[in-house]
Amino acid sequence: MKAYRELERRFARDAVLGDVTGLLQWDCETMMPEGAAEGRAEQLATVKRIAHELLVCDATQDLLAVADEEAGALDEAQQANLREMRRSYAHASAVPSDVVEASSRAVSKAENAWRAARRESDFKMLLPHLEEVLRIRREVGAAKGAALGLSPYDALLDSHDPDLRQAKVDPLFDDLRAALPGLVEEACARQQALPPIERPAGPFPTAVQRRLGEMLARAVGFDLNRGRLDVSLHPFSGGATGDVRITTRYDEDDFAGALMGVLHESGHALYEQGLPRSWAHQPAGAARGMSLHESQSLIIEMQAGRSRAFTGFLAPLLRQAFGGEGPAWSADNLHRIATEVRPGLIRVDADEVTYPAHIVLRYDLEKAMIAGDLAVADLPGAFNAGMKELLGLEVPDDRRGCLQDIHWPAGAFGYFPTYTLGAMTAAQLFEAALCAEPAIPEALAGGDFTPLREWLKANVHAKGSLLEADDLLTAATGRPLEADVFRRHLRARYVEGEGV
Amino acid sequence: MKAYRELERRFARDAVLGDVTGLLQWDCETMMPEGAAEGRAEQLATVKRIAHELLVCDATQDLLAVADEEAGALDEAQQANLREMRRSYAHASAVPSDVVEASSRAVSKAENAWRAARRESDFKMLLPHLEEVLRIRREVGAAKGAALGLSPYDALLDSHDPDLRQAKVDPLFDDLRAALPGLVEEACARQQALPPIERPAGPFPTAVQRRLGEMLARAVGFDLNRGRLDVSLHPFSGGATGDVRITTRYDEDDFAGALMGVLHESGHALYEQGLPRSWAHQPAGAARGMSLHESQSLIIEMQAGRSRAFTGFLAPLLRQAFGGEGPAWSADNLHRIATEVRPGLIRVDADEVTYPAHIVLRYDLEKAMIAGDLAVADLPGAFNAGMKELLGLEVPDDRRGCLQDIHWPAGAFGYFPTYTLGAMTAAQLFEAALCAEPAIPEALAGGDFTPLREWLKANVHAKGSLLEADDLLTAATGRPLEADVFRRHLRARYVEGEGV
Repeated sequence: MKAYRELERRFARDAVLGDVTGLLQWDCETMMPEGAAEGRAEQLATVKRIAHELLVCDATQDLLAVADEEAGALDEAQQANLREMRRSYAHASAVPSDVVEASSRAVSKAENAWRAARRESDFKMLLPHLEEVLRIRREVGAAKGAALGLSPYDALLDSHDPDLRQAKVDPLFDDLRAALPGLVEEACARQQALPPIERPAGPFPTAVQRRLGEMLARAVGFDLNRGRLDVSLHPFSGGATGDVRITTRYDEDDFAGALMGVLHESGHALYEQGLPRSWAHQPAGAARGMSLHESQSLIIEMQAGRSRAFTGFLAPLLRQAFGGEGPAWSADNLHRIATEVRPGLIRVDADEVTYPAHIVLRYDLEKAMIAGDLAVADLPGAFNAGMKELLGLEVPDDRRGCLQDIHWPAGAFGYFPTYTLGAMTAAQLFEAALCAEPAIPEALAGGDFTPLREWLKANVHAKGSLLEADDLLTAATGRPLEADVFRRHLRARYVEGEGV
Repeated sequence: MKAYRELERRFARDAVLGDVTGLLQWDCETMMPEGAAEGRAEQLATVKRIAHELLVCDATQDLLAVADEEAGALDEAQQANLREMRRSYAHASAVPSDVVEASSRAVSKAENAWRAARRESDFKMLLPHLEEVLRIRREVGAAKGAALGLSPYDALLDSHDPDLRQAKVDPLFDDLRAALPGLVEEACARQQALPPIERPAGPFPTAVQRRLGEMLARAVGFDLNRGRLDVSLHPFSGGATGDVRITTRYDEDDFAGALMGVLHESGHALYEQGLPRSWAHQPAGAARGMSLHESQSLIIEMQAGRSRAFTGFLAPLLRQAFGGEGPAWSADNLHRIATEVRPGLIRVDADEVTYPAHIVLRYDLEKAMIAGDLAVADLPGAFNAGMKELLGLEVPDDRRGCLQDIHWPAGAFGYFPTYTLGAMTAAQLFEAALCAEPAIPEALAGGDFTPLREWLKANVHAKGSLLEADDLLTAATGRPLEADVFRRHLRARYVEGEGV
């Protein structure tokens, strides 16, 4: 066990340094003065390089070999931890420290360029920086692919979601690609057959939205003694182990965005706060991939948060908080707003039915970029053509087109598909939760997330990475991921007007 | 030059890691949720240990030896940088990495215990943690002393303020010890002979104070594009290179504390922002010790900020902002409030005349603790006896006694004297600045800090650590530090009612 124990020590140090970068990145999005961007890039690059150098070395490699021989003395959880150590090491050791540092610097530069480019809606301002990030990501994908026996794109998918492969994504997305246009059409037709939606009249003061947001975060079960809720340009969940920080943004003309954002990020936060504490800072104690992570935010926001049951609880609270009056504030009308289908340009504002189209487009484009089949200079044209084809929309400018998302400047190629895989996973898990805990809808109707959260904690959160994603999902729902439940969910809620 | 260049690279990495810990510590005081304290302690201990291990090694030692031989090829500034590298290395290498890590952990624990103990006014809650911190600091003092050829207390002084020695502090403090009781008495007598001070009636809304605070920070010249102003329990200046973060605290019954706090911390921030950018992240580019640092905050807060000239500018702004009326808001009355002498229990609330008594007491006590002549268990009694002797005050509880300051739980033994040495330095520098730039008072009367700031920048900030503290002060004022100017300043302002 000596080698295994020493590995635990090394991976714990690595995780603590990951916490440090998590906090620095949170600060970057929420607190950092603009003029400090260059210094922050230096800090992040330095910590990431050091973490990489401390982990990837002959000594760790030797310890892993010895630990393999000792594996008989390890219990099942320790063996799972050792498996995750090996996986983590394989990824890290495929990339030289110089590339890790260069990647961190290139990403910091591209993110800053992206902020300015998006503000000006000028893709040229981003172009050279995104080219550099893509160049490094292709290099990283090729290096990891060679080490792991995967294609470069599969290697990148695997970085965000262990064992995810293009061969698994393609059929699931093909299924959606075929089903979605019809679903969107039917959902829109149903909407038009109903009386028009009433729009609550603003303004909706930020202070009131903030109070409601905190109330919602607490209702969901987010422990604010071990986390924070702040404001950023783009809502996210980040921070460190035991210090989970989520953000939202407030628009005084629309309260739904901020509040649904809080529900979404609180779902991510519940996962992080529910991970097994005895495995904190160990690979086995980490969240099991981004698809599962996204499923946790979408169960809270989409499955539970936009349910008829929970909207019925929320409606009178909103009416009272904003001093609203009239039919716009009825539970039924607010539920129609929360489940309105409207093809639009912006991914993060998209409804549940049209959202996958945004992902399918990005999935196609990033595969082409990583394969070298699409040059960054040609991205705006390809993006706009895809929007036309998939959602029938003209993109009027790059700000509302390929400049809307930070993911590619941030180097996150292979990340987008996890959003829609997360939606599928959410549907499958929520169905299983309802089956196991029939009291969930009634609890949600009373604003109580406890039965849902307890089921998620037991079946997802507390598992950390002790199980592989497929095994976790099979243990929780009886089968691996499929597109069917998600399609059924969309049809029930948006075409039949049924569901929780 | 090859060895020197490699040393630059190593020390830059060390400074970047120092920036990281600076930001984590800022977050700890301003943003961190309470439940994250343990994780933060782990992060700080890990980063500090790694930084120490990366700096202190045979390779650095060898490089320093080779660089010494190459020194002829270095220009004057590079030689100064090499001198500071050697100094920094001598301090760091005297302490094993294990002790660095243990010290960081013990300090985090003691700081948390201190917060609780202060809240409950229960010294026993702090006792074992402070004993552990003192034990480690004594060990560190002894180890550094042995390496540097200094007594343990001198070695600790030297950590905060290079070349500061007890033999230098003692005569300066003896001078004050003798002069202060008479000064306090005369100042109080003068106050009583004047008409009573009028107290502006509150409440003074936090939002208004915040706006005024930001205005003052900007007026002083604090660049908020490379820094922030926030709230913390105790005002401080921290953050990172190019990202200087200051705090204050707001009390709706009293606006002076918050605003003077902003001026004070802005003085620290000006120093950090004015350091030579071409030497950023190098030892020669760092601030030259805590006495000089404190002099910069005190020049802005005490010498300029509480001057008759600047108060005359500020009074109508305050009156307007708070909607005040009547004689309480006259410039003369507000100046009397800003320069009121009143012996009190709390160091940070103390006026300029009684403040040194708080320092002399802590200096005596910490020397005794480091020497092993005063046990932590006996600290409350010794503290209270000292307050009685030096200021004639009974300490009613430990919260307002030896639990009021975080310094000792934070391990900062040898730090307190720099406050009063800073006050002396401030008086000496301000006198020289007035002599060199006779336009300063008139500018301050118009709310313009530019001539003062430019002089400070040229004579102090931009020097970084290229000069030793004594040489810097001699270059700026014509002579090394003396108590005389400070005594004259106190007499002029508080006894004669003269001065700027």
